[in-house]
Amino acid sequence: MTGTEADHARHNARMLRIQQARAKMQARRTLERGLLIVHTGNGKGKSSSAFGMAIRSIGWGMKVGIVQYVKGSWETGEKNFFHAYPDLLTFEVMGEGFTWDTQDRARDIAAARAAWERSKELILDPDYDFIILDELNIVLRDDTLPIGEIVDFLKDRPLSKHICITGRNAKPALTELADLITEFGEVKHPFKAGFKAQKGVEY
Amino acid sequence: MTGTEADHARHNARMLRIQQARAKMQARRTLERGLLIVHTGNGKGKSSSAFGMAIRSIGWGMKVGIVQYVKGSWETGEKNFFHAYPDLLTFEVMGEGFTWDTQDRARDIAAARAAWERSKELILDPDYDFIILDELNIVLRDDTLPIGEIVDFLKDRPLSKHICITGRNAKPALTELADLITEFGEVKHPFKAGFKAQKGVEY
Repeated sequence: MTGTEADHARHNARMLRIQQARAKMQARRTLERGLLIVHTGNGKGKSSSAFGMAIRSIGWGMKVGIVQYVKGSWETGEKNFFHAYPDLLTFEVMGEGFTWDTQDRARDIAAARAAWERSKELILDPDYDFIILDELNIVLRDDTLPIGEIVDFLKDRPLSKHICITGRNAKPALTELADLITEFGEVKHPFKAGFKAQKGVEY
Repeated sequence: MTGTEADHARHNARMLRIQQARAKMQARRTLERGLLIVHTGNGKGKSSSAFGMAIRSIGWGMKVGIVQYVKGSWETGEKNFFHAYPDLLTFEVMGEGFTWDTQDRARDIAAARAAWERSKELILDPDYDFIILDELNIVLRDDTLPIGEIVDFLKDRPLSKHICITGRNAKPALTELADLITEFGEVKHPFKAGFKAQKGVEY
């Protein structure tokens, strides 16, 4: 056996042990139900990642509902794209722009309330398998909707579907309830190096 | 003016100041070129987030190439889904299974090499606007491909397209070169609570 062959043999033996350990681990995972998922943190990718799960779900024929709580100046690639799926995807852009653009607290509250009422309908509708509440965390952080009411509703949610809530500054009352939380950390951001928002990446 | 009205007026004035500050910040962002993007960390969402950018790009009519370096036991929702876009998306599942499943170091190296050769073709092909090299970081971490060769190629890459590289344990030689890095941190993972991998969420 050459040196490389011996290295490879050692590698292969080690991989067999890892495979066996992983099989054991997987056998212990038996639970299955709708998850409450939270994407938070200052880093980029929270909404993109939710959209990635949306297409994964559509690929399985699952029905997806998305409610966007903050509209910004969006004409977005994802909206252009998702509009091609009227049967499997409902895409509701319900929020107003960013609060610093509307400059109208009363209007922000009314828009967030309407978005939440629509979100509840989608969550309770047995046709939907995956619900994304995009940027809801921002609305909760700013107390534009009361966290208590939202958490109380989510505690009694149907467990037949996944719900993914995105936005920085997720409140502890929500994260305590969540099954899956990813914190998106910003390590390097092109804005800070003087880059504009670019198609495909930011919108 | 009632108390609430006064609160709202204060809020609105503050938002106006934020809006002005943001407009100034945005005016300073003038650079525009293909970004090198890295999704790393132990948390969930690195690939989903890249797929979310893929559909955003497709929504703008941009052409996307995806090379998957680690196949796992995938029959995935995203693969089912993306196969509906032969014109705007090339989806290459080139890697072997996880190294602990193949248990064949020589085969892993050959598969990774073939995937990298295909990746270079897509990166150099002027038709493509967005390239995703899914789980390339894993292959680099395990020295299945030499980091020096990959980084040298990426230093001279065409700047007309975005490239997104995913996978935990991104090497410093790569992150130094990147324009945008998000670290996906695991806060809560359903596997640890005994949940199985579920459709739409994990695959």
